[in-house]
Amino acid sequence: MTNTTTATHEALYEQVASKIEHLISRQILRCGDKMPSVRKVSREQGVSLSTVFQAYYLLENKGFIEARPRSGYYVRQALQKAPPEPSMSKTGNAPKKVNVDSRFSDLMKDVPERKIVDFSVASPSADLLPVAKLNKAVTQALRVHKKKNYEYIFPPGNPRLIRQIALHSFDWGGNLDTEEIIITNGCIEALNICLRAVANAGDTIVIESPTYYGLLQVIESLGMKALEVATNPVTGVCLDELEKAISKTKVAACLFVLNFNNPIGSCMPDEKKEKLVKLLRKKGVPLIEDDLYGDLYFGKKRPRNAKAFDKDGMVLLCSSFSKTVAPGFRIGWVAPGKFRDKVERIKYMSSVATPSLIQEAMAAFLETGRFEHHLKSLRLAYQVQVRKYTEAICNYFPSTTRISRPEGGFVLWIEIPGLNAAELQQRLLTQGINIMPGNIFTAQDRYRHCIRISCGMPWNSHIDEALQTVGKAAKDLLK
Amino acid sequence: MTNTTTATHEALYEQVASKIEHLISRQILRCGDKMPSVRKVSREQGVSLSTVFQAYYLLENKGFIEARPRSGYYVRQALQKAPPEPSMSKTGNAPKKVNVDSRFSDLMKDVPERKIVDFSVASPSADLLPVAKLNKAVTQALRVHKKKNYEYIFPPGNPRLIRQIALHSFDWGGNLDTEEIIITNGCIEALNICLRAVANAGDTIVIESPTYYGLLQVIESLGMKALEVATNPVTGVCLDELEKAISKTKVAACLFVLNFNNPIGSCMPDEKKEKLVKLLRKKGVPLIEDDLYGDLYFGKKRPRNAKAFDKDGMVLLCSSFSKTVAPGFRIGWVAPGKFRDKVERIKYMSSVATPSLIQEAMAAFLETGRFEHHLKSLRLAYQVQVRKYTEAICNYFPSTTRISRPEGGFVLWIEIPGLNAAELQQRLLTQGINIMPGNIFTAQDRYRHCIRISCGMPWNSHIDEALQTVGKAAKDLLK
Repeated sequence: MTNTTTATHEALYEQVASKIEHLISRQILRCGDKMPSVRKVSREQGVSLSTVFQAYYLLENKGFIEARPRSGYYVRQALQKAPPEPSMSKTGNAPKKVNVDSRFSDLMKDVPERKIVDFSVASPSADLLPVAKLNKAVTQALRVHKKKNYEYIFPPGNPRLIRQIALHSFDWGGNLDTEEIIITNGCIEALNICLRAVANAGDTIVIESPTYYGLLQVIESLGMKALEVATNPVTGVCLDELEKAISKTKVAACLFVLNFNNPIGSCMPDEKKEKLVKLLRKKGVPLIEDDLYGDLYFGKKRPRNAKAFDKDGMVLLCSSFSKTVAPGFRIGWVAPGKFRDKVERIKYMSSVATPSLIQEAMAAFLETGRFEHHLKSLRLAYQVQVRKYTEAICNYFPSTTRISRPEGGFVLWIEIPGLNAAELQQRLLTQGINIMPGNIFTAQDRYRHCIRISCGMPWNSHIDEALQTVGKAAKDLLK
Repeated sequence: MTNTTTATHEALYEQVASKIEHLISRQILRCGDKMPSVRKVSREQGVSLSTVFQAYYLLENKGFIEARPRSGYYVRQALQKAPPEPSMSKTGNAPKKVNVDSRFSDLMKDVPERKIVDFSVASPSADLLPVAKLNKAVTQALRVHKKKNYEYIFPPGNPRLIRQIALHSFDWGGNLDTEEIIITNGCIEALNICLRAVANAGDTIVIESPTYYGLLQVIESLGMKALEVATNPVTGVCLDELEKAISKTKVAACLFVLNFNNPIGSCMPDEKKEKLVKLLRKKGVPLIEDDLYGDLYFGKKRPRNAKAFDKDGMVLLCSSFSKTVAPGFRIGWVAPGKFRDKVERIKYMSSVATPSLIQEAMAAFLETGRFEHHLKSLRLAYQVQVRKYTEAICNYFPSTTRISRPEGGFVLWIEIPGLNAAELQQRLLTQGINIMPGNIFTAQDRYRHCIRISCGMPWNSHIDEALQTVGKAAKDLLK
C-alpha cells in the first residue's frame, strides 16, 4: 500500500517537472525568468504543495532552475554556452600492434596508496549501490539454494538469471532468447571470450578512437592488432570511414561501445546502428558490441543495441551489472549470435563457471523487480553528477577546453589544446588527485593533450575543490 | 573444553588404529586372522571400550578389517592381489596441435539430461562440502564487510584470503610470501593466465601422458601445441625422457600435475620433484604446477610441491579450493614466481577481479581454522571411497583390467586391453551411466582402451550396481 502511494506521488511530481521542462525547452520560460510560486503551481495543477516542491527539487537537480536566497526559484543559465565538444578523431593508416598495457602499469606504479580524490576510475560509488537489497538477495540465496550455492553451475549458467536478462532485453527491443545467453565473470571476460571466438593472434580488430584502455589491453594480451576508425564525439564511428577501412584491410571483427562510449561519450543513433549492422553483414565482419553503459541513459528512452538489428547472428552482445548493480559481483553476460557454441566452449575453458552463489543472488535481486527502480534513481544521480562536474570544469579549466556532452554514462572526455596530460597527472598526484591521461585510450600516438574524468563520485565540496585544483594545474602547465 | 576433549579422543583412537595397522602391515596379524576382542584391546591399551570401537570402525573404513555377522572382526584380504597398475606411457614424437575440445563437446552432446549415475565428473559430492560452515562464513562477510562486498577488490585480491593461503603453504614446506599470491577465478583461470604469461600461440607446452582434458582444452584454445612425455603411473613424468624431449625440441613451458595426477593418479616423490626443478632450471624452462589435489593425500604426510624447491621463481604454482571446499566458489590462486607482474596484469585483463563477497567468505571460513579439520575428514572419505570403488572394479571388471592405485585424490584410471571405450560409454549412457573415455586425455591417438572413473560420490548400493553394469558391459564388448 505504501509502495503504491509512493509510486503515484513520484509519477505526479515527475509529471509536473516534465511540463515545466517543456516550457523551458520551448523558451516559454526563459533563462533568468523567475519561476511561478509553488503555491500558484499547486493551485493550477491541482496537486499538493509538497508535490510541487519535489518537482522543483528535481528540476534544480537536473540543472534547469536554481534557488536564489530569499528570492525563490529562477530559470538557470542553460549549458548552451558550454565549451565546444571534442574534435572528431581520424582513421589510423594501418592496424597497429597494441602497447597500452605497459603505459597503463607505469601509470599505476606512481599512484600512492593513501587516500586521494580519484577521478581516474570509471566505477560507480558504493553509495549508489543497492546494498541492503543485495544483502537480502544473498541471504535469500543462502536460505533457498542451500548446498547448490557451493556446487558448479556450468555454462551457460543459472537459468533464472538468464531469464531475467532475457526479460530485461525487451527494454532495448532486443527480445533475446534465453537459449542464446551465457553468463560470464564480468563484461571483460565476455569480451576476451568473444575475441578468442572470432579472431586469432595477429588478426586485426577495428575499434573506435579513443577507446577504453581495458579493451586495448585485452586486444594486446591476445596478440591481436587494432585499427582505429574515425569517431564522432556525438554519433560514434563514422560509417564511411569504417567501410573504407574494412574494404582496404582484412579485419577479423569490430569491437565497439555504441551507447555512451567510454571515454568519448558518443551514442550512435539507432538508425545509424541499423546501417552499421547492414554494412558489417555485407562485409561478413562480426561485431562485438560492449553495452556496459546502455542502461544509464539520461533521456526519455533507452537507446537500442546493434544486436536489435541483427538478423544473422553476427553481433556478439556483451554487458554486465558492474556499472549498475555491483562491480564486486563480477556478473557479466554475452549473447553471441551464431558464435554461441564456440563462446560457451571458450567460457568453459577460461574459468569453467561463474560462482553459483553470486549468480543466484543476482537472480534473486532482479526477480524482486527493484532493478528498474534502482536504475531510475541511478540514472538521475549520474545525470546530476555529470552536469555538476561539467559546470565546474567549465568554470575552472582553461578557456580553450573542449568537453564531451554525454547523454548517458558517467565519464567526461576533455581536450585541452597544448596540454601535456601525463605531466598534469604527475603534478596532481602530488596534490592527492588522480585523473586518467588520454594517451592510454589509443593504440597510436594520440590524445596526449586529453584527459578522462570519471563522475562516479557523488558531488560535494571536496570534488569541487579538487576540480578547481585540476583546472589551476592545467592553466599553470599551459603558461 | 568440548573441542579439546573431542580432539584428544580422536588422537587416542587414531593412535590405537595406527598400532593395529602396523601389526597388519608387518603381517603379525595376517589376512583371515580374527581380531583381538574389543574388551582385550581396551584392557591392554588402557583405553575405553568406545575408543577401541572407534579405532575398529576406522580400520574397517580404511579396508584393513571386516566385521563378520555374529563372529566379530577379521583381518581382510588385502589389496595385494589387486590387478596390475596401468602401463607406462611413451613420449610423443613431436609437438602436436591439440584437438580435444571437439571430441569433448561431441561426448557432452550425447549425455541425456535426465538423472544418471555419473562417474565422469571429477568433482566432490555436495554431501562432502562444509555447507553449514560456509553459510556462516557468507553471513559473516555480509555483516562485517558491508558494502565492500559489492565493490571491486582488484588483483592480487583480498589480503586476508591471501594471508590464509600463505599460512597453508607451510603444510607442504612452501613458505609462500603473501606478496607472491594472486587470487583467480578457479584454478583453470590461473592456468590460462600462466600459459599466456610464459608462452604464445604456436609454442610448445610439455605435458604428462595421460593429461586432464581440461588442460588440453586450455592449451588448444590458446593455439599452443602439446608434447607428451612418458609418465610412470606411480612416480610421474620420466625425467630422462623429459630431458631428451626438451633438449631436442624448443619448449615454452611444462604443465604438470605432480601430486595425484588426474587421471593417472601418480604422485612424484619429493626427491624427484627437486631433480625436476633443477633440470628445468638448467634448461631455462618454466614449470606451471597444477596442485589441485595435493591436499587430498591418504598417507601420513602431505607431499611437497615442486614450488618448495624453486629458488629462481621459475615455478608458477596454481591451485584452488574447488576440490576441497566449494567448487561453486570458483576461488583459485597462483604463486607465479618471477612472472608475478605479468600474471597480475593478465589476470586484470582476463576478468578484472574475482568476486569480493566470495573472497571475503572464503577468508572468513579459513580463519575459523576449520579447514584442516574438514580436510581430514574429506581425505578419509575419499580414501574409503577410492578403496570401495577399486574393490568393486576388481570384482566386476574383465580379468585383464589394470587399475591405478592413487595415494590421494579421487579418480581411477583403468586400462582394459582390447576395449573400445567410446563404444562402452555409448552403451552405458543408454543404461543411465556415464564414464569418461580415455582418448580425451591425450593430444595424440592414445588410450582408446582406457576409461577414467571418478570416485567423488559416496559409496552406496547404487554405485555398486552401476559399477557392476559397467563391468558387465565391458566384458560383453570384449566377447
